[in-house]
Amino acid sequence: MSAGEGRLAGQQSLRLDLALIHYPVCDRRREVIGSAVTNLDLHDLARAGKTYGVRNFFVVTPFAEQRRLVEELVAHWRLGHGARYNQDRGQALALITVCPALTDVFGHLAGQGEGRPLTVATSARPREHSLPYAVLRRRLWDGEPCLLLLGTGWGLAPEVLSQVDEILPPVGGGGDYNHLSVRSAGAIILDRLLGDRV
Amino acid sequence: MSAGEGRLAGQQSLRLDLALIHYPVCDRRREVIGSAVTNLDLHDLARAGKTYGVRNFFVVTPFAEQRRLVEELVAHWRLGHGARYNQDRGQALALITVCPALTDVFGHLAGQGEGRPLTVATSARPREHSLPYAVLRRRLWDGEPCLLLLGTGWGLAPEVLSQVDEILPPVGGGGDYNHLSVRSAGAIILDRLLGDRV
Repeated sequence: MSAGEGRLAGQQSLRLDLALIHYPVCDRRREVIGSAVTNLDLHDLARAGKTYGVRNFFVVTPFAEQRRLVEELVAHWRLGHGARYNQDRGQALALITVCPALTDVFGHLAGQGEGRPLTVATSARPREHSLPYAVLRRRLWDGEPCLLLLGTGWGLAPEVLSQVDEILPPVGGGGDYNHLSVRSAGAIILDRLLGDRV
Repeated sequence: MSAGEGRLAGQQSLRLDLALIHYPVCDRRREVIGSAVTNLDLHDLARAGKTYGVRNFFVVTPFAEQRRLVEELVAHWRLGHGARYNQDRGQALALITVCPALTDVFGHLAGQGEGRPLTVATSARPREHSLPYAVLRRRLWDGEPCLLLLGTGWGLAPEVLSQVDEILPPVGGGGDYNHLSVRSAGAIILDRLLGDRV
């Protein structure tokens, strides 16, 4: 069975987790910063995650005030006024777990009885050694657990990239311009890895 | 040459235009409404359009005040303070042409010396007859001009769908939940049609 066929049957065995990193990331001058959480990143990536069968969507920020805001947003849509207005949104945002750092993400997965997953970074910059989408799709389809890291700002800092097992190539159409939002890039990457083929 | 190979060479001959429709669209009760323009829809879809080599990004709304706001946004990033802060953004937003109605989009394309393109709707709802992504990808790759319609709100109204030549299947992973933002769905659809295969 080729990757993408029998998707409904196989969906239960797919083990992809997503982490949106707000620190350490780069700014436009490639300096390491912590970025602010963007409301719509959470909505769009949670909706895409739920649509494609992602298990956990980790929102990673060391700033306690920002973590509290995310918790409030999730509670609003799961339990508050938002839940009465639009139940679908709460279902998606329920994927969110807020973590101070990447090590806490690994800790959370260990708490779910998981070992360290294949940890894969995404990047808008081409690199010499990267993992083709078709290869990762096949490995996911074969049941391998994978944690996919998305960077905010101008992308994941070198100290994150040095910790991962693999880096995916940038998505795009092969042209010179490549300035997708993390919302768009994340959605495209999920589709390349988990999308049906209709 | 299969679709997707030789992408750089073929990019010049690809003729895909995008239109984001704010009226007539459906609300959550499937009543026909006009939706408000969302700032981030324009940014995200313009950036994705530029990344994938889209020619024109038409923003369609009958509300004059909304059209004026879009023009101001584009001017800010192309000519104003935004252009000094981030040139990449202005390049993407330069794809935008604001139109009162779909007929004006066809008029604009006719003014560029084009006939009526293959007009293709997108939808989050599965339909009996839809055009597979691989087929449209091939037709685009063969140089056929295509106008892709994205609906805001809860999707394109029946009176739009009755005017199009084809409808694409919903994107997703084959599960029951399918509530992507138009920003995410648009990015995924561009990738399925125009994306490289790395």
